[in-house]
Amino acid sequence: MATDLFDGTRPSGLQRLPARRVHHKDLHQFTALVLQAKGMRAEDAATVADTLVWADLRGIDSHGVGWLPKYVQFCDTHVIDAAARPSLELESSSRFVLDGNRCAGAVAMMQAMAMATARAVETGSCIGGVRNTTHTGAIGRYAVWAAERGCAAIVFVAGPPFMMYHGARVPSVSTTPIAIAVPTADRPPIVLDMATSVIAFSKLRQARAQGESLPPGTALADDGSPTRDPARAVTPAPIGGPKGSGLALMIELVASVLLGSPILADHLAPSGRRRHQQNALMIVPKTDAFGAGDSFTTNAASLTTLLRQLPRAAGTDEIRLPGQRSAGTALERTRTGIPITLELWQELNNLATSVRVDMPSLWTET
Amino acid sequence: MATDLFDGTRPSGLQRLPARRVHHKDLHQFTALVLQAKGMRAEDAATVADTLVWADLRGIDSHGVGWLPKYVQFCDTHVIDAAARPSLELESSSRFVLDGNRCAGAVAMMQAMAMATARAVETGSCIGGVRNTTHTGAIGRYAVWAAERGCAAIVFVAGPPFMMYHGARVPSVSTTPIAIAVPTADRPPIVLDMATSVIAFSKLRQARAQGESLPPGTALADDGSPTRDPARAVTPAPIGGPKGSGLALMIELVASVLLGSPILADHLAPSGRRRHQQNALMIVPKTDAFGAGDSFTTNAASLTTLLRQLPRAAGTDEIRLPGQRSAGTALERTRTGIPITLELWQELNNLATSVRVDMPSLWTET
Repeated sequence: MATDLFDGTRPSGLQRLPARRVHHKDLHQFTALVLQAKGMRAEDAATVADTLVWADLRGIDSHGVGWLPKYVQFCDTHVIDAAARPSLELESSSRFVLDGNRCAGAVAMMQAMAMATARAVETGSCIGGVRNTTHTGAIGRYAVWAAERGCAAIVFVAGPPFMMYHGARVPSVSTTPIAIAVPTADRPPIVLDMATSVIAFSKLRQARAQGESLPPGTALADDGSPTRDPARAVTPAPIGGPKGSGLALMIELVASVLLGSPILADHLAPSGRRRHQQNALMIVPKTDAFGAGDSFTTNAASLTTLLRQLPRAAGTDEIRLPGQRSAGTALERTRTGIPITLELWQELNNLATSVRVDMPSLWTET
Repeated sequence: MATDLFDGTRPSGLQRLPARRVHHKDLHQFTALVLQAKGMRAEDAATVADTLVWADLRGIDSHGVGWLPKYVQFCDTHVIDAAARPSLELESSSRFVLDGNRCAGAVAMMQAMAMATARAVETGSCIGGVRNTTHTGAIGRYAVWAAERGCAAIVFVAGPPFMMYHGARVPSVSTTPIAIAVPTADRPPIVLDMATSVIAFSKLRQARAQGESLPPGTALADDGSPTRDPARAVTPAPIGGPKGSGLALMIELVASVLLGSPILADHLAPSGRRRHQQNALMIVPKTDAFGAGDSFTTNAASLTTLLRQLPRAAGTDEIRLPGQRSAGTALERTRTGIPITLELWQELNNLATSVRVDMPSLWTET
């Protein structure tokens, strides 16, 4: 594979040695300054920093500031065009397509979600497409943003192949993240943010590094057969076998081919172009525009309260809603700072030196 | 559970004793006449028959005419209102909500998909909701219908709880079918039609009846723990654990709560109403309205051709597209007839006698 590809996860064992803590605002400022030094407008750099730090705050370290060194490399090698702004290719009152022009993924995604939400608020619903952008990060971020503004949001993201299509023995479909968020009356938005693979790519690498046997059904060997041996595991298994990989194929069709911007075919064709790219489709209904009137958030709260009070399975201490654990981590990390591994700290320090930006202050107990 | 609930599958070992074959047109006519005898308009009876026979033709026997005895019982007990017609509750150029008024599911779903497709053809996209309807059957049918008319279609269906939410030890979410279909240049539409459970409920019952050990990861015992023991398995496991059950929860939120028609909360509340009901959300973009121009079907064909030619996993004879096997079965059964088990034949015969309709002719080799 070409060197400008990546698998949606940090290659290093990011979370093993938490050793520094920084305030999320300091980390945000540092991240934005580094990106500005690479040619990004201040506003766009802040948007990218927001998405990365949002993930770090919520404990989704695989999508946090650990990506910054890779983003900088992407800017240096023109995989990301730091100065690019998305352009509106097509629009009506309830649909649009935004071309990212290879801008940073968060810039295109946040602009698109703002447009989709504004149209949904005005007309009741919107379907928006984003094509030709780059690593979109923790896509729950964009869905939550819409949910905070009275909409439900469904986001599909298509990307390069890192998972085997059912029956194939080469990576052939994306792990295809899906995020769905809705507002609720009694807590922050409920947000499901999942890949169509059973485990993350980073878990495979971690198991390999540590020689740990993998849970059954989570990974495939290079002949496409299931394996628990970390030395043989090359790709994560799709959830539900043909279901997960079928979903990944269909999402490429509705989030890439529909936007006139195929990704997988370019990677699978022998002479195809194999560069990093992501596309997205976002579906945004306003919660009071489909018959629920004002009842949506209270009915959502009633349901989730009932769910959380159900009899629990053996070994379960708490029945959690999608995103609930992350929301708790965000509260905690807002109070105690974001942990940065020694390894990442060193990488950030190298970046800081090369672009002449001050490192973030270390956390001080208050 | 109340007697008017069902689990989305026929309780009997439907496919074990194929013994009669009938022409699909004869089976369609018979099915429609039985439903008309129960008070359904000829047009609606034909629509329901179409959906059931479509499933039988494609080898999806769990959603075929095996349901007819249950539908008749539903009509007799007013779970289905045979005479009801859906009413349009809300509409704009790109969204609507149809209330089924407890009509047969296929009647509301087909009317809604026709409306969604017409609006998408006119304006580029449509999001349609269907509430207060009954068993929707093989929902791939409706998605394919849109794909045959130049649209992509995503269909989510919400229903009563037959799967455990992650961490719970009682059925708490629906198995929540999802269908996605798109047109392609070189073959019938590609259609993914899947539940968010690893296996169908009918497979659990079959394993129990036959004392067969279940594949790992497919079923849960009544304490919510995984089991392979068919005697202990009470519900199918969600695909990807918290992912599959999280998806089921989010689909209840966007296909039921969004339409002002909650299902799960009624079932989970101690004093709630526990009747059979299904709701749906359908998202229909026109394939040339999101930037692909005329390229959608040819690009879809290029991708699927590449996928099908990939190196195959050990033990895989053919890499198949979603719906490909069913499409092949439909060709075969169009030529050779639809097999009906002796047991189902007897049930249909009882129906025929009770409503004074002639049984379908047996298949004659031509």
